[in-house]
Amino acid sequence: MENIFTDEYFMKKALQEAQVAFDKGEIPVGAVVVIDNRVIARTHNLTEMLNDVTAHAEMQAITSSANFLGGKYLKDCTLYVTLEPCQMCAGALYWSQISKIVFGARDEQRGFMVMGTQLHPKTIVVSGVMENECAALMKEFFAKRRK
Amino acid sequence: MENIFTDEYFMKKALQEAQVAFDKGEIPVGAVVVIDNRVIARTHNLTEMLNDVTAHAEMQAITSSANFLGGKYLKDCTLYVTLEPCQMCAGALYWSQISKIVFGARDEQRGFMVMGTQLHPKTIVVSGVMENECAALMKEFFAKRRK
Repeated sequence: MENIFTDEYFMKKALQEAQVAFDKGEIPVGAVVVIDNRVIARTHNLTEMLNDVTAHAEMQAITSSANFLGGKYLKDCTLYVTLEPCQMCAGALYWSQISKIVFGARDEQRGFMVMGTQLHPKTIVVSGVMENECAALMKEFFAKRRK
Repeated sequence: MENIFTDEYFMKKALQEAQVAFDKGEIPVGAVVVIDNRVIARTHNLTEMLNDVTAHAEMQAITSSANFLGGKYLKDCTLYVTLEPCQMCAGALYWSQISKIVFGARDEQRGFMVMGTQLHPKTIVVSGVMENECAALMKEFFAKRRK
């Protein structure tokens, strides 16, 4: 039997969260955290609504997952996020010791890769999952905002 | 007339916050945010109590200050923190565009300087204010924990 729980399957859920952010006028980034094929957190960027630069989707996902698990380390968890994490989020993911990070679109300006932020040595990174869809939503948002 | 509002004056307040963390069994890091010589946020590390790797003193200080100011940018604000910020906190401070960061003790392992995290180009950094007192509290905490 085919496994339906692919990276694309969960990235679609992150993209749904990004769409919710988009509809609220937030930079459209969404995230889900998964353990044993079960979604334990769904979050989206809320920096405008909360007036808080720390309210990125990933930060909320980490806090929410830790709350669900009753412990602060996200071992055996995978974060799906539509955009490459920034320094802050990568730094938080470092502390969380998360097992795997899957992201969609690259952030060539502020992403952790170009910024040189270090992840935990145990963390696996997969990039480019549904990259075009994730990037398209961002482009649409900024095109709309410029008008 | 002598200005009482020196960096040491505010670092003492951050150190008081670190002591509160110490007394709770948290890694003793404290922070205050100051604007026009007025303290607008006082926070301390709560990662153990909240089971949340993102609950560093600085992260709470940023959220709390933005809430006080009613805006997410911390222009004209100074953060006093007893320990050099980590990648996550420096990344958050980058987004906040804070004017000045004053820290006490260096963190040679996980501090943003050794990790290469970038701050906002507008942010001024002052280090080593009450360094010995800040470092002594950390040493006391870890010595006690090893017992």
